[in-house]
Amino acid sequence: MEDLYKDLREEVEPLLAERRFEAIKQILSASNAQDIAELITHQPPKEQVLLFRLLDKELAVDVFEHLSSPDQQHLLENFQDSKVKDILEEMSPDDLARLLDEVPAVVAKRLVQLLPPQERKNTSTLLGYPENTAGRIMTPEYVALKREMTVAEALDKIRRVGLEKETVYYCYVVDEKRRLVGIVSLKLLVIKPPTAIIGDIMDSDAISVRTEDDQEKVARDLQKYDLLAVPVVDKEDRLVGIITVDDVMDVMEEEVTEDIYRMGGVEVPDTGYFKARVLSVVGRRVGWLLILLITNTLTGNIIMGQADTLRSVVALAAFIPLLIGSGGNIGAQSSTVMVRGLALREVSARNYWGLLSREVGIGCLLGVMLGTIVTIWAHWLQGNWLVSFTVGLSLVVISTMASLAGGMLPFVFSRLKLDPAIMSAPFITTMVDVLGVFTYFQVARFILF
Amino acid sequence: MEDLYKDLREEVEPLLAERRFEAIKQILSASNAQDIAELITHQPPKEQVLLFRLLDKELAVDVFEHLSSPDQQHLLENFQDSKVKDILEEMSPDDLARLLDEVPAVVAKRLVQLLPPQERKNTSTLLGYPENTAGRIMTPEYVALKREMTVAEALDKIRRVGLEKETVYYCYVVDEKRRLVGIVSLKLLVIKPPTAIIGDIMDSDAISVRTEDDQEKVARDLQKYDLLAVPVVDKEDRLVGIITVDDVMDVMEEEVTEDIYRMGGVEVPDTGYFKARVLSVVGRRVGWLLILLITNTLTGNIIMGQADTLRSVVALAAFIPLLIGSGGNIGAQSSTVMVRGLALREVSARNYWGLLSREVGIGCLLGVMLGTIVTIWAHWLQGNWLVSFTVGLSLVVISTMASLAGGMLPFVFSRLKLDPAIMSAPFITTMVDVLGVFTYFQVARFILF
Repeated sequence: MEDLYKDLREEVEPLLAERRFEAIKQILSASNAQDIAELITHQPPKEQVLLFRLLDKELAVDVFEHLSSPDQQHLLENFQDSKVKDILEEMSPDDLARLLDEVPAVVAKRLVQLLPPQERKNTSTLLGYPENTAGRIMTPEYVALKREMTVAEALDKIRRVGLEKETVYYCYVVDEKRRLVGIVSLKLLVIKPPTAIIGDIMDSDAISVRTEDDQEKVARDLQKYDLLAVPVVDKEDRLVGIITVDDVMDVMEEEVTEDIYRMGGVEVPDTGYFKARVLSVVGRRVGWLLILLITNTLTGNIIMGQADTLRSVVALAAFIPLLIGSGGNIGAQSSTVMVRGLALREVSARNYWGLLSREVGIGCLLGVMLGTIVTIWAHWLQGNWLVSFTVGLSLVVISTMASLAGGMLPFVFSRLKLDPAIMSAPFITTMVDVLGVFTYFQVARFILF
Repeated sequence: MEDLYKDLREEVEPLLAERRFEAIKQILSASNAQDIAELITHQPPKEQVLLFRLLDKELAVDVFEHLSSPDQQHLLENFQDSKVKDILEEMSPDDLARLLDEVPAVVAKRLVQLLPPQERKNTSTLLGYPENTAGRIMTPEYVALKREMTVAEALDKIRRVGLEKETVYYCYVVDEKRRLVGIVSLKLLVIKPPTAIIGDIMDSDAISVRTEDDQEKVARDLQKYDLLAVPVVDKEDRLVGIITVDDVMDVMEEEVTEDIYRMGGVEVPDTGYFKARVLSVVGRRVGWLLILLITNTLTGNIIMGQADTLRSVVALAAFIPLLIGSGGNIGAQSSTVMVRGLALREVSARNYWGLLSREVGIGCLLGVMLGTIVTIWAHWLQGNWLVSFTVGLSLVVISTMASLAGGMLPFVFSRLKLDPAIMSAPFITTMVDVLGVFTYFQVARFILF
């Protein structure tokens, strides 16, 4: 039981450079599909094809399922139809649907024509559901039982069909109209006597999700109820598929990555940030930056409007970065905890006002603490107490405003059915720039003139 | 199969306000443990105890396991020893270890004394492993088989001991020294003939982790290899426990929350942000803010050092917020993608230099685009082309520097074995404030004087 898999890349890459294919072939045949997929992902396009050709047919299909869609597409373009057909036939319908979804329409059409009729039907059913829904990530490969079966008959059925199914650890009991009426675990089937009747031992009150449910909700349900799989039913309560925990873990990771990128003000390209072309990344980043830039031109207008004030007390300029910087940091903290709190359902309409006022109170308290320190420092730097008080008081006001903005905007966005993560640190800091500069000069005019 | 559980809080809370306990008791007895736990979590301390008392013994234990440690502790303090004992005895060793870990030492001692000897031994074994390691989150409740057993004997053993075990879907084959020699799935046991020998059908090449492995590594392995559970072995390869996928999903969520909070410049209190007392939150936030504030006082010093420059060209002050704000946003984008890339292992020492130079190139390109726009706007705002060029050129330099800092610091931190997420948006923006102001005045002196 060694960590055989750890250094596959370190092992294979030098051999690949020396074109020692026979040696690579031997190493790969003893490796995990997931590790080989990881190895291939990190290679340039030409090497990807080379490595993939070195795999046995069975392993090749397994590896293929663990590659990202762009890598899959690249490989398919470099293979003959017969090999493509072999791979597609062995893929599970949910993985296949995801692939067809992301390749260009012409390629998808060609691929679908290579499928046997049953596979074609399964896949196009899944493709009928909107993206990011349960219907799209489910698989129709589950074990269905009937109420009147005995445990022995059920085990017999599992023996016959189990090898092809995505999971056999839960079996699903349906009535004559294929409506889901219960769930029975393999554990229970093994423990109960062979003569017991499925209808008597099944759990008829288990959790299910609907085809149109958001995949994030499905992930949360599986996690919350500690399930290995959850059945998916249509509007008429008919069982149409199941979603297994391994697919859900991938969904969770995708959603978290999307959230984190958004919180940093980046839209993620489908191919993943690090594999996307530079110009596509620039395109996706410059959009937000332009909006923020235009918002931030307001700070320039405000300051130019106060040119006379500045000319008479030039020291005021020295504290602008510190004030808006600290305010921005406090606002970023508030928006971060709110965005995550909304994602984890810790924040809801019910407890929102309490949490927001708590957040604003915390912001005000932080402002008072930092403001006191800054007042002293400002006096040391330029010697005028009035200017120092202006700076300190401004920081208190700015901190309070920043935590209000950071605490409020994510919630407003979620009410408007927009992703709260868009109200990210960059947005909040830019807003605080504008509000902060404005506040600062208002306070300055009030105290100094 | 209805979404019965959706509105448990909406249903129970009004009844709780009216003190209609009998009605609540009925509703709870038909509800899921997870939903009841969620309900209890959202109540004030006194109501938590009230609700918990309404649960049947068996359900109570189930609900208890789904509560957070502070809620568990609060409940335990309000119960008599006999009830506490009932609950503790039924908890699984890994959950119990987590609880004992988080209550004060005196409470832990009292609780341990209530345990039966075997439970006490299991739990203190787990507590012997460092926090956040595989040893701490594993459970010793697995099914162990021997190589020479037949499939029928194995199924027999599962029937006898299976109900108490955390999972029976994988069974673990050990030799006479309890060293892990293979894994066999329940699926295989069901499909293979009863007379088959375990040693012949087991997978002797399966993935295992070590007690000292980081829990994040375990989570990644389970996800990567699509496993429902992974065996944990000690330094002598002896099987000491297993980690199941449901525990790992909770670990993943915790780790992601920690990362996201850090990226926003917040340290998470153990109790969770929204349940922590205000002063504890302030304490955890003010630390970072102070460091950032002190760093940012440098901007004040730099600007005060340029007071003469500013007095002669007061318009220069108008562009400070925009320049450091835009630079900060670009830096935040770069650090976000790098921190996430490191967490997902997309960024490694191997491909790092390539990705960093790509990142700097992107930053420079973004700087040129934004700088051009800003030059035109600056001319419109104050009419002096030399000042406008100063602003535009500064933005190009600042953007490039910001993406260099944002792309480099997370990696430097990860090399130093520190969490790269600490190099968060707030840190990067503060750094860019200082570097940006400095750059701006250097460029200004070069062009204008």
